[in-house]
Amino acid sequence: MNALDQLIDAIARLPGLGRKSAARISHHLLQRDAVEARRLADLLSHLHERIRRCSICGSYTEHDPCTICTDTGRDRSTVCVVEQPQDVSVMERSGEYHGLYHVLGGVIAPIDGVGPADLSIGALLRRLGGGDIREVILATNPTVEGDTTALYLARQLEETDVAVSRLALGLPVGGDLEYADRLTLARSLRGRTSLRGIE
Amino acid sequence: MNALDQLIDAIARLPGLGRKSAARISHHLLQRDAVEARRLADLLSHLHERIRRCSICGSYTEHDPCTICTDTGRDRSTVCVVEQPQDVSVMERSGEYHGLYHVLGGVIAPIDGVGPADLSIGALLRRLGGGDIREVILATNPTVEGDTTALYLARQLEETDVAVSRLALGLPVGGDLEYADRLTLARSLRGRTSLRGIE
Repeated sequence: MNALDQLIDAIARLPGLGRKSAARISHHLLQRDAVEARRLADLLSHLHERIRRCSICGSYTEHDPCTICTDTGRDRSTVCVVEQPQDVSVMERSGEYHGLYHVLGGVIAPIDGVGPADLSIGALLRRLGGGDIREVILATNPTVEGDTTALYLARQLEETDVAVSRLALGLPVGGDLEYADRLTLARSLRGRTSLRGIE
Repeated sequence: MNALDQLIDAIARLPGLGRKSAARISHHLLQRDAVEARRLADLLSHLHERIRRCSICGSYTEHDPCTICTDTGRDRSTVCVVEQPQDVSVMERSGEYHGLYHVLGGVIAPIDGVGPADLSIGALLRRLGGGDIREVILATNPTVEGDTTALYLARQLEETDVAVSRLALGLPVGGDLEYADRLTLARSLRGRTSLRGIE
């Protein structure tokens, strides 16, 4: 197998890419000058040295603690709890959240052998012990495992005096009723918001 | 911008990938151990040194001439003319072709300033001058430019005594009449193949 086929193979193993996209990408890199391929190579080879987990929130960062944890301009009384480091950038992109984060590193999933002890829950409770945090937003995914984990955390936090909330479930903005699944529609109805006259 | 965002940016610039897929791929590489990222980095950084164009057919190869051009087991009397090096692997995958190749390096496209002189046509004519080749299959894409280039080549080859053919146009296998576009259907009707009784 030559170097080109090896590259196509390696790229095809990345998530969401098949052989055709891998071939297209490899040929693109080969047709451009070597600089683009070498720049990508450089970024990849140093990725693991340059990026670490923030020792406070657990998200990816080049400098520990991360820029969000050290940003004094942010609302330090709110913590948004997410499953994975990449969820931090997703939340940030919404432009709606200005507090801190806590990355669990997964969800409770007994089938996969993941229990509460495998997640960064102890560290979250220690952060709350500091006394500055007044609200915890549970932003685990709206899946069975995400819901289970959120419920588990809510119960763990019952003893403390922080407010606990969960991201709203409902129709996606710009979506169409016709394409909404039954469960989403049911949750969206149950969580309906008052416009006038209904308390 | 940290090393992770730089990688996401670089990947998002590859053909067929957006920011979301780029983020997913980068996080995948970060979550796996460093070996996978480093292997990809190694393949990318040496790609341009390892892969060159075959001096006979123009396709990508590690050793010049390429394994197809030097394979004495192949039918050396037929040459399939394609636009780009990647078309060689596409043709090979069909398992139906066992002759040689010739890569033009593009198509005649006056709008993009590409004329016959920019393509590897002189080299093709010199190969035909050798006298071993008896058929040229024109496998440029079924586009306006591909058709123009095929017609141009057919005219150039009129003086020689090689047979010249073009890939058949028609319905894709497994396709549905309902989804075939008007032009494809028209070409498929015009090029209909006899099953019985029609000459």
